Amino acid sequence: MKVEVLQERLAKALNIVSRVAASTKAGLPILSNVLLRADDKQLVLTATNLELATVEYVNAKASKNGTITVPAKLLSSFISNLPKETIKLSSEGDKLTIEAGGYKSIMNGIAADDFPELPSIDEKEAVTFKIPVDLFKESVNQVIIASSNDMTRPALTGVYLNTFDGMLYIAATDGYRLADKKFVENVKSEIKAIVPTAAFREVLSSLSDDMEEVEVSVVDTLIRFRMGEVEIISKLIDASFPDYRQLIPKKNNLSVALDKAELLRMTKVAALFAQESNGSIICEAKKEDGSFSVSAVASEVGENSSAMKADISEDAKVTLNSRYLLDALNATTEDKVILEISGKLSPVVVKNVKTDDYTHIIMPLKS
Amino acid sequence: MKVEVLQERLAKALNIVSRVAASTKAGLPILSNVLLRADDKQLVLTATNLELATVEYVNAKASKNGTITVPAKLLSSFISNLPKETIKLSSEGDKLTIEAGGYKSIMNGIAADDFPELPSIDEKEAVTFKIPVDLFKESVNQVIIASSNDMTRPALTGVYLNTFDGMLYIAATDGYRLADKKFVENVKSEIKAIVPTAAFREVLSSLSDDMEEVEVSVVDTLIRFRMGEVEIISKLIDASFPDYRQLIPKKNNLSVALDKAELLRMTKVAALFAQESNGSIICEAKKEDGSFSVSAVASEVGENSSAMKADISEDAKVTLNSRYLLDALNATTEDKVILEISGKLSPVVVKNVKTDDYTHIIMPLKS
Repeated sequence: MKVEVLQERLAKALNIVSRVAASTKAGLPILSNVLLRADDKQLVLTATNLELATVEYVNAKASKNGTITVPAKLLSSFISNLPKETIKLSSEGDKLTIEAGGYKSIMNGIAADDFPELPSIDEKEAVTFKIPVDLFKESVNQVIIASSNDMTRPALTGVYLNTFDGMLYIAATDGYRLADKKFVENVKSEIKAIVPTAAFREVLSSLSDDMEEVEVSVVDTLIRFRMGEVEIISKLIDASFPDYRQLIPKKNNLSVALDKAELLRMTKVAALFAQESNGSIICEAKKEDGSFSVSAVASEVGENSSAMKADISEDAKVTLNSRYLLDALNATTEDKVILEISGKLSPVVVKNVKTDDYTHIIMPLKS
Repeated sequence: MKVEVLQERLAKALNIVSRVAASTKAGLPILSNVLLRADDKQLVLTATNLELATVEYVNAKASKNGTITVPAKLLSSFISNLPKETIKLSSEGDKLTIEAGGYKSIMNGIAADDFPELPSIDEKEAVTFKIPVDLFKESVNQVIIASSNDMTRPALTGVYLNTFDGMLYIAATDGYRLADKKFVENVKSEIKAIVPTAAFREVLSSLSDDMEEVEVSVVDTLIRFRMGEVEIISKLIDASFPDYRQLIPKKNNLSVALDKAELLRMTKVAALFAQESNGSIICEAKKEDGSFSVSAVASEVGENSSAMKADISEDAKVTLNSRYLLDALNATTEDKVILEISGKLSPVVVKNVKTDDYTHIIMPLKS
């Protein structure tokens, strides 16, 4: 292989691709390598950790096509430190020579034959849809916070893409809270797929300002994201997601609209005093006082209580994990939030005031 | 005590003071507290780790003078989360009540009587001088990088303030490199003091844009820094500093001026390939080629070499630790640097081209 490519383009591509390679623990040494394939007018970079693969296409001028794999992190750090010039890459056997101005390196690689083959999507079978980048970012960030790290319950470590009434939703839950977001309107085919949260995180990290939309294709066992010159393919999680819609309360005793910034502040302050009690804070609405208060249970370090005026139709009181409430509040997108409280043991609903496409549920703590 | 103070001022002061308290390991619980003293028109905040104390003076309105200590980190986080309003602090026994708008907290503290007394400086004995903040920052940052973390050689963990020919210098060395900077011109009295690097770091972190100069006072066993409303007092290190001036080479075989940005880049790139050899890189000047090159010893991952044009009067070659060279280059302040090389075993001198107030020396590695 013999190829010329611009430093800036190559550095950017390696930065994205090497993240996947770098995340490989022990295992096959070749998985920490990036596969380079020179192909006439482009250089294709690929990295995989066997669960997930990232492919990036870079404009280039190949005078000799070919392939090689070299350590991804080393190549990425090296290229990013070079001056903004044309870089010449050439391979001979398992060695990659890199030249740019006065800089010359020879890296020891591994033959591309040993690189694991990537799973590919059967375009005919796939359900494909497109989402504007901003909406994609917002929605995914609103939902992945509720997913679990507990590997013993694989379904909960993912984000559930599911169609309902002709709309596509994404949802995640760790058993203590649940986030649900309307993702795409009018999807023709049915989709039920649990996508590893890691895949969504990888897509989020790969988005850049020059991208406009994300194209998503789903088949039985795989999902593919395409944006700009980046492609990410991930295996789906083979498990069944809980029937989460039945967990969302249909009715409530109290629905109160509150200033989000103020409620965030009150929750943060109470959380400081709630560290001994694992973050337990008490939210209380008092009809007579027209006040909504957040307080921490008195502890070794002291006690705390804050209150704000609010239009309260009914007394209500519930104990929540402060971290979950903070996450939920931060995930809403308007200046005001609605809290729906039904009793000490009923899930609390957090949502926007004006829009109804996002629902966040928090299970109360026993008080 | 009963005192009113503005949230912004108090939050800023606590942010500085709580760093010292927070750094306390185990030991006396009261050392993780901040001492509050209401005193008519000011609130004085003090924290200490017994080696070092920070005092900050905040404008306030005390209707009742008094003292109390409370957990510094908790108070700092709490106050920084409150809205920008007037905060009311009042103490009763060991409890501090904090009120602001709808926020109320009661913190459990410890009586101020148990707070360790701060060492104080005898003004008559002290040698005092002032330094503009910018020069202070630059000089200290240029020197502390060469200090050691090795507690078995206490003198080397500090920065040596010393007068020579009527000038005050600061110097530090870890045995592998040495940095020396002219700090203040025309100092009347003699100073020989080893200041803990931690004290200088604390001063650096406490500097803000509204400060113009740092006043430094030194006595036999203590040093005090005053800037704006902050005061930092530290014990000196009781040890003798090596006679470092004799380590600075007086003559050299080759003195070469090089573009700093380019040399930094070449060194960074070589360092990537030098990880197996603990950062060993080879710097080589060739008179015939008129080139200066940096290369890494060939390793498992590959090999690397970069070169630039330079005006070379004499062939020279030396092996250095890449990290030390990077630190030294970053510590110089001009676009060009001078490297003085005398042989494989002689220390390399790094300095600015135009100014002569900073000298950095690196011991070569055996190659």
